[in-house]
Amino acid sequence: MVMKKVDLRSDTVTKPTEAMRAAMAIAEVDDDVLNFDPTTRRLETEMAMITGKEAALFVPSGTMGNLISVLVHCDVRGSEVILGHDSHIFIYENGGISTIGGVHPRTVMNNKDGTMDIESIEAAIRNKNFEICYPTTRLICLENSHANSGGRCLSVEYTDKVGVLARKYELKLHIDGARLFNASIALGVPVHRLVQAADSVSVCLSKGLGAPIGSVIVGSKSFIAKAKILRKTLGGGMRQSGVLCAAALVALQENVQKIEGDHKKARTLAEGLNNIKGLKVDLAAVETNIVFFDILEEANITAQKLCNILEEHDILLMQDKPKRLRIVLHHQISASDVQFTLSCIQKAVNGVSQGNGRS
Amino acid sequence: MVMKKVDLRSDTVTKPTEAMRAAMAIAEVDDDVLNFDPTTRRLETEMAMITGKEAALFVPSGTMGNLISVLVHCDVRGSEVILGHDSHIFIYENGGISTIGGVHPRTVMNNKDGTMDIESIEAAIRNKNFEICYPTTRLICLENSHANSGGRCLSVEYTDKVGVLARKYELKLHIDGARLFNASIALGVPVHRLVQAADSVSVCLSKGLGAPIGSVIVGSKSFIAKAKILRKTLGGGMRQSGVLCAAALVALQENVQKIEGDHKKARTLAEGLNNIKGLKVDLAAVETNIVFFDILEEANITAQKLCNILEEHDILLMQDKPKRLRIVLHHQISASDVQFTLSCIQKAVNGVSQGNGRS
Amino acid sequence: MVMKKVDLRSDTVTKPTEAMRAAMAIAEVDDDVLNFDPTTRRLETEMAMITGKEAALFVPSGTMGNLISVLVHCDVRGSEVILGHDSHIFIYENGGISTIGGVHPRTVMNNKDGTMDIESIEAAIRNKNFEICYPTTRLICLENSHANSGGRCLSVEYTDKVGVLARKYELKLHIDGARLFNASIALGVPVHRLVQAADSVSVCLSKGLGAPIGSVIVGSKSFIAKAKILRKTLGGGMRQSGVLCAAALVALQENVQKIEGDHKKARTLAEGLNNIKGLKVDLAAVETNIVFFDILEEANITAQKLCNILEEHDILLMQDKPKRLRIVLHHQISASDVQFTLSCIQKAVNGVSQGNGRS
Amino acid sequence: MVMKKVDLRSDTVTKPTEAMRAAMAIAEVDDDVLNFDPTTRRLETEMAMITGKEAALFVPSGTMGNLISVLVHCDVRGSEVILGHDSHIFIYENGGISTIGGVHPRTVMNNKDGTMDIESIEAAIRNKNFEICYPTTRLICLENSHANSGGRCLSVEYTDKVGVLARKYELKLHIDGARLFNASIALGVPVHRLVQAADSVSVCLSKGLGAPIGSVIVGSKSFIAKAKILRKTLGGGMRQSGVLCAAALVALQENVQKIEGDHKKARTLAEGLNNIKGLKVDLAAVETNIVFFDILEEANITAQKLCNILEEHDILLMQDKPKRLRIVLHHQISASDVQFTLSCIQKAVNGVSQGNGRS
Repeated sequence: MVMKKVDLRSDTVTKPTEAMRAAMAIAEVDDDVLNFDPTTRRLETEMAMITGKEAALFVPSGTMGNLISVLVHCDVRGSEVILGHDSHIFIYENGGISTIGGVHPRTVMNNKDGTMDIESIEAAIRNKNFEICYPTTRLICLENSHANSGGRCLSVEYTDKVGVLARKYELKLHIDGARLFNASIALGVPVHRLVQAADSVSVCLSKGLGAPIGSVIVGSKSFIAKAKILRKTLGGGMRQSGVLCAAALVALQENVQKIEGDHKKARTLAEGLNNIKGLKVDLAAVETNIVFFDILEEANITAQKLCNILEEHDILLMQDKPKRLRIVLHHQISASDVQFTLSCIQKAVNGVSQGNGRS
Repeated sequence: MVMKKVDLRSDTVTKPTEAMRAAMAIAEVDDDVLNFDPTTRRLETEMAMITGKEAALFVPSGTMGNLISVLVHCDVRGSEVILGHDSHIFIYENGGISTIGGVHPRTVMNNKDGTMDIESIEAAIRNKNFEICYPTTRLICLENSHANSGGRCLSVEYTDKVGVLARKYELKLHIDGARLFNASIALGVPVHRLVQAADSVSVCLSKGLGAPIGSVIVGSKSFIAKAKILRKTLGGGMRQSGVLCAAALVALQENVQKIEGDHKKARTLAEGLNNIKGLKVDLAAVETNIVFFDILEEANITAQKLCNILEEHDILLMQDKPKRLRIVLHHQISASDVQFTLSCIQKAVNGVSQGNGRS
Repeated sequence: MVMKKVDLRSDTVTKPTEAMRAAMAIAEVDDDVLNFDPTTRRLETEMAMITGKEAALFVPSGTMGNLISVLVHCDVRGSEVILGHDSHIFIYENGGISTIGGVHPRTVMNNKDGTMDIESIEAAIRNKNFEICYPTTRLICLENSHANSGGRCLSVEYTDKVGVLARKYELKLHIDGARLFNASIALGVPVHRLVQAADSVSVCLSKGLGAPIGSVIVGSKSFIAKAKILRKTLGGGMRQSGVLCAAALVALQENVQKIEGDHKKARTLAEGLNNIKGLKVDLAAVETNIVFFDILEEANITAQKLCNILEEHDILLMQDKPKRLRIVLHHQISASDVQFTLSCIQKAVNGVSQGNGRS
Repeated sequence: MVMKKVDLRSDTVTKPTEAMRAAMAIAEVDDDVLNFDPTTRRLETEMAMITGKEAALFVPSGTMGNLISVLVHCDVRGSEVILGHDSHIFIYENGGISTIGGVHPRTVMNNKDGTMDIESIEAAIRNKNFEICYPTTRLICLENSHANSGGRCLSVEYTDKVGVLARKYELKLHIDGARLFNASIALGVPVHRLVQAADSVSVCLSKGLGAPIGSVIVGSKSFIAKAKILRKTLGGGMRQSGVLCAAALVALQENVQKIEGDHKKARTLAEGLNNIKGLKVDLAAVETNIVFFDILEEANITAQKLCNILEEHDILLMQDKPKRLRIVLHHQISASDVQFTLSCIQKAVNGVSQGNGRS
């Protein structure tokens, strides 16, 4: 029998559930490029409602969702976007907004909690005066929850303030909400309220929500109309997309409620790791389903080595830096997986040999 | 009971079969971005084998397949591609190779059969001498079968000649094989032989083959390695893509053999239309599953009006020009659908009123 | 003593006259990037007046003039421009509108006289209906006089018709007027009338007008305001540009009146060449200062060989094709240069040896 | 009689000297696009020699020099450049490397002295491992002297270290040497030594050197060959450019030796300003010809107001921030201009009314 792996590298690794597969098997579909696939339309309508926006568009990935959003807001040559120096869009999306879209990224330092100082954002804006040697700022991007800060959440108050700033300078505000549901649940704030200030949001369905494929972007009708054309340009228009959206609709129905559990498992894991001699976790940073932990000097092991040892026990982690690792919880990690993982890490760090004794 | 529509607008409108849905429901999957999804890998391996290329990559659409292919071959700023003035890439893909990729398209006139004259291609090549005011030709694109010529096929001999020309000038050759299987079957030439001269091919799985979503691009290992990065940039990297590839594998197994029937139905339809007073079909052009027909002056009806009348009978056609329409056959159109369509068109063109009497 | 070369390769080869050099030496100048250089401002004002437009901008070259104009009109991602398949912008400017600007070029066949059929232009326009797979046509480009047709002129009537078409579809019209003064004089139509229908025009000062460096683009105030920013982006903003504009002002004052003479010399040369056994000139095409001539089969010499022989006599020509050459007249070619050139070509083509006996 | 303005906004405002104008008037010229202008060739040869590089290219501006350099090094789609967050290329060149070139800028924090920490640069490099979600770092840019730090100089040692790092990761190193001669003289290091580690350098001729127009980029022969094509694409190819290069050659001969004087005047001004109650200058930062000074809270005047008052006395300064101004010295500012400026600023800041009494 094949041992199921404890895959903690990302919440993108979840497998579709039986309910999702059943939904895919009976999904009502049509050609979503030629006219509209009814199941895709249902998902888009539901996501628009949940986020409180006029319209929505299904896209194959979060990267495409962000790329389209930035490019639609910055559709005029010579545009600049303000975004966090440690944001997913800037760091992990191949620089596509520039290399494909020709948008100039102006980074502002992310604080430890994923925010950027309001004053720093304001100072970076360059559409205040006509100035012949400046690109024109047209967009601010936030990320909620913020992955590289350990999944920390931007509060409604903060987001609203950035929204006020954006409107003051006639800028647009996009939120990379790859893990927006995590933020909503951790903060206890409805999704639509959390993104009220935003002109567009991209929400991933294949991370914490567990759908096999896809993200949705939401915004005004005119934004989505432009987004649809750009989706076609990029090659993201899909035919019978209802098969994927059927799974996503199940995800919305069944998995949102599991997210709180993911956060609890993350906290258990974080506290457990922090109790292991030689490891350190910034517990205050563990607000959602992500845990970063550092290997202290006293522990004579590298992140790479630790990954290798754990892999022998069918536990998969992601190295972030030479002495830093990332764990992401999701609904297919059980409480016993968490305990098993803690136990294996402790043994590995403390150098005790052990068997593959998961029961 | 809902009457099934006779949807002749495109072969992209097919619904996934029961077998495909069953395959999706049990597909073995993994995160295809983080490592590799096993079902996706199986499809890619199979497509590489069928086309005789080293490697393959699953992408969400034919548009993305072509976009990635052109951009990988033209990865240096200042590149020019030679392609048909009536090719799908030039006409129907939003100009993405320029607007997203910055590639300069140099069009050569397509002949009625979809070919471009070899001498015209050669005359258009601009990497022969260093010339300070020219972009550098790096790629030639063919399309087989060629949609806008009515689905006509490029022969092996022609394709090979273009391949020889490409190598002479150290250019790459890409084939837009959205309907490559149609060409292969119509010509009686194996797919791998038909694209032997090509450095890359994009093949659509959701047209004649009937899969719900997806295309595959094939080429050398280094080409596919670059393509994979660009797919991520564009947002075409998908997570548990095995659910889609499972359906595509069924399509390969079950639907290739149905294509010959599609061609026969196209011929029946073409001949029937040509026999209707007031319509004209270039029968020589009907080599595969596409039929263009013209409304003659004597028939007092526009294409738009004809479409509207047919839609009342649940028959969907696509207008190409004010007096020209396009029909595309696929495996979900039956012989009786063909007869019903002919009958309705005849009545509409000849002005006889009729009921919705399909039996 | 150095024999002055008879340089017939282009009208770009003229040397600044004594008057121009004197003007440069005393030009009043300032920093044209920081505020405005007074001499540059004078040139811009004069060019705006001559062309009947609101505003003007000095740029380092005709290529930059065209590039800026196309990019300003097509400043939104996803734009398409309609232009001649044999236009200078499409053929000789490195494909910059695509490779630098991401604009999709839609070519329409140029007729022998440099026009494109109005119906063909109209058929190529793609902003009539919202269509998800099309780029959006935003611009039509004409070229007057049209270099590759042999310097033929677009009439006011034709240009106005294209203007009407452009306005009908809410497109912009740009005229590449590298040799606009030649067209104006040949047609006997004032410059401002000739470009009345255009939203922008680029006019070269260093071709027939003989200034050492520079072109000017003209259009509305808002067009020029955007053009100025883009000029800075491209690196075309220059500091004490008055030194160049002083020469250009002299060119406007002294050299416009010489253009008629250039046209007469072109005609003399064309007729003389056509009288040489073995050569053929389409005399009807010689409307301005450009002469293309073909070497017939009966003349046993290639264009390259002919160029080489002439170069020994200090006559420089440009090869266009293996059996076709181009001559361009300008104000520094004298009547005796024309006769000397004819004599040398006759001897070269007819194989008689001759001395370097220009007197 | 018109009072000459004391223009301290930039060293770009210098007017061509009599010797430059005389040189322009007799410059030997040719068509630099068709073949090569002899005077331009002389300037390029001389600049290549001075900087110790194989080849050189004259361009209309420093912005174009930087743009071409970055784009040639990053000629493959998906490239990333590492550069200072406060560098001229990133802040003041319209974001052209992204908006025109599609290059992704990865900023590293500039220290107060214009350097970036070597470790920070190394940490930002992303071509170490194949990673599907990263752009590929291909270039590091330095700026010497560094304008926004107040014209501070990068030492040979620092530059060499960055060069070693670049070679370690097979990256290119470009130096924006707009004011490279200032750095060379301030450091007492020959220009060629200062840029020995660089693959390309752009040097401005119209800043401290006082030529009316132009910059030169230098590098290997193959770099310059590519740069020449891109210059044509951007529209920077100019015809009889010898008229400009003649002035630049005079600048090299006569004005390099004046730069040391500019630095002394800058120091005098800086010390004088720092002695004015209510103003503050970081004297350690005044290494070359630029002086930034801050208005302290105790001085009841804004930068804008101060500029306005000075302008009434024909003194032009540039506001940098609401309470910060910039002064740039150049060879057309005399010692008495410096004293007059100090006197006017003192009176303005201390609120004493004064006449326009410059003698």
